[in-house]
Amino acid sequence: MSFPPHCDVFPGVGMDCCVIPLRHGGLSLVQTTDFFYPLVEDPYMMGRIACANVLSDLYAMGITECDNMLMLLSVSQKMNDKDRERVMPLMIQGFRDAAEEGGTSVTGGQTVINPWIIVGGVASVVCQPNEFIMPDGAVPGDVLVLTKPLGTQVAVNAHQWLDQPERWNKIKLVVTKEEVKEAYQEAMFSMATLNRTAAGLMHKFQAHAATDVTGFGLLGHANNLAAQQRNEVAFVIHNLPIIAKMTAISKACGNLFNLVQGTSAETSGGLLVCLPREQAAKFCSEMKSQSSGAGGQGAAGGAWIIGIVEKGDRRARIIDKPRIIEVPPRGSQAANQDNSSTSPAPSPNLS
Amino acid sequence: MSFPPHCDVFPGVGMDCCVIPLRHGGLSLVQTTDFFYPLVEDPYMMGRIACANVLSDLYAMGITECDNMLMLLSVSQKMNDKDRERVMPLMIQGFRDAAEEGGTSVTGGQTVINPWIIVGGVASVVCQPNEFIMPDGAVPGDVLVLTKPLGTQVAVNAHQWLDQPERWNKIKLVVTKEEVKEAYQEAMFSMATLNRTAAGLMHKFQAHAATDVTGFGLLGHANNLAAQQRNEVAFVIHNLPIIAKMTAISKACGNLFNLVQGTSAETSGGLLVCLPREQAAKFCSEMKSQSSGAGGQGAAGGAWIIGIVEKGDRRARIIDKPRIIEVPPRGSQAANQDNSSTSPAPSPNLS
Repeated sequence: MSFPPHCDVFPGVGMDCCVIPLRHGGLSLVQTTDFFYPLVEDPYMMGRIACANVLSDLYAMGITECDNMLMLLSVSQKMNDKDRERVMPLMIQGFRDAAEEGGTSVTGGQTVINPWIIVGGVASVVCQPNEFIMPDGAVPGDVLVLTKPLGTQVAVNAHQWLDQPERWNKIKLVVTKEEVKEAYQEAMFSMATLNRTAAGLMHKFQAHAATDVTGFGLLGHANNLAAQQRNEVAFVIHNLPIIAKMTAISKACGNLFNLVQGTSAETSGGLLVCLPREQAAKFCSEMKSQSSGAGGQGAAGGAWIIGIVEKGDRRARIIDKPRIIEVPPRGSQAANQDNSSTSPAPSPNLS
Repeated sequence: MSFPPHCDVFPGVGMDCCVIPLRHGGLSLVQTTDFFYPLVEDPYMMGRIACANVLSDLYAMGITECDNMLMLLSVSQKMNDKDRERVMPLMIQGFRDAAEEGGTSVTGGQTVINPWIIVGGVASVVCQPNEFIMPDGAVPGDVLVLTKPLGTQVAVNAHQWLDQPERWNKIKLVVTKEEVKEAYQEAMFSMATLNRTAAGLMHKFQAHAATDVTGFGLLGHANNLAAQQRNEVAFVIHNLPIIAKMTAISKACGNLFNLVQGTSAETSGGLLVCLPREQAAKFCSEMKSQSSGAGGQGAAGGAWIIGIVEKGDRRARIIDKPRIIEVPPRGSQAANQDNSSTSPAPSPNLS
């Protein structure tokens, strides 16, 4: 028994939520919990990310509402009173603000003292059957869409290395400090973005199944999702949208992160959605227009066609030389020049 | 902002659960979460205690059903693989078994690596209005009943001191090692006992309000409960049922625990229930017969009349010289001789 940071020792692994039939007229209780340790320095953004990460499991089932959130917190015993009073209210506020953006609120929780700071929560909703999409309906011919770029772990680590010369020396030939800072900002905003828009569009465009991409990386979660399909299908991934420069960093580190292999951990990653072929491009285009409308944050609020569903043995794979889509950080020069975040066809390509 | 181990930084403090009105016909989502660190050595019993502790918040509202539980766990990074594989499955099994005893099951959760072991959970139920009792209906003339003896913290600490000569020397004049071991066993079984029977009897005997006794101690939770009453009432506590010998230990330590003052922390303590005067003795007697019937565990499965509700300013107090009811550990000589766990009238008495 060995527990990676995001593992789940409970049944129904591939499922992002538990779905409990209730004693009351056809309703189900859908619930999820997640907690972890801070990975960005800004406590307010960390609170937002933690909340987005919890809600993401509901969104992966096409659920757009949440009836209640509980917050799980620990205060580090190593913090002095001043730091605690500065940091914890900001983190709580970030969590609350993201919950409000999700149309819900935080009405309870638990706080303990611990060596490390913990932040997380529980999201619960009582649903009618038509409110959620069971993640088991993929059919051959479907198209796979991803709604956030990969590379958050690489960006967070590279940002820490700015202050560690021996680490920085390994990557300074492939990336500038400015690019690392931009990528870190991009990762932070991306992780703090709710997958709620995508959840709503899953209904509009008749998604067949979805999951969210977190600790096991794109390929890990794609495999989990493939494993629980009713039909004998396989997921084949051709394109990898990745925050700009993160591929180069990963390679410069000797593939330390396995980013291009698809197993680099993500936090509060995007939804991986199986859509009918004729709906995928429309889904992507509406994701793009809705996100630039709402947050006005450009490039990352998008969606990319990344692969296809074939007949197969319920596994997922990435093709030999996937096309890397370098996603420019929002606000960067590149983002302002090239804002196209949808690729119309899943065409294999050289990286 | 300072957080005691069991504090709650969220609104609705006096409430043990959050109650969320749902979008569906008059139903409410009632939820609670709790997690903490192991305090007994037996991992299986620790799992049971953690589960009983989470469910207790539902039971305090007279709710006897639970639709779902999530489990929150951390594995200590300091454990080697062997210890981990031995300890964690037992703790999980204890938690699951207690959930099953509560008529529910554990369908999800989250596990992380942490310096310390954490164990806890989330309990959720969707209720019709008649399934729960809002804890705000106490009236003058009501009688206060407590369904588990106090002193769990003292018992757990005294047991640790068996191996610490400098600590043990302070208490060895008032207690034997055998008595400490019996008290520790008693505390462990008491903490692992579900308050579900009491929750059911709250309906049968028209309870007006209740809470469960945990981190703030009897007086702390009595104060919280008094503070949220609709009527202008005060709670006056005359009797303190306490695991045998724990009062003597607490006094020998210079009131380190404030046990008789009512603020010694309890874990998975009993329910403090406000009952109509004419119902209180019947509630106690049925608690006793149901618990000796079910677990056959005698003395601790009981209930004690501990005080009364008067007109007042929504506070609780313990009288100057409360009567101490020494509750013998189940299985002990004393327990076999004197199994009367109900005191028929709330009579103030000398300690």
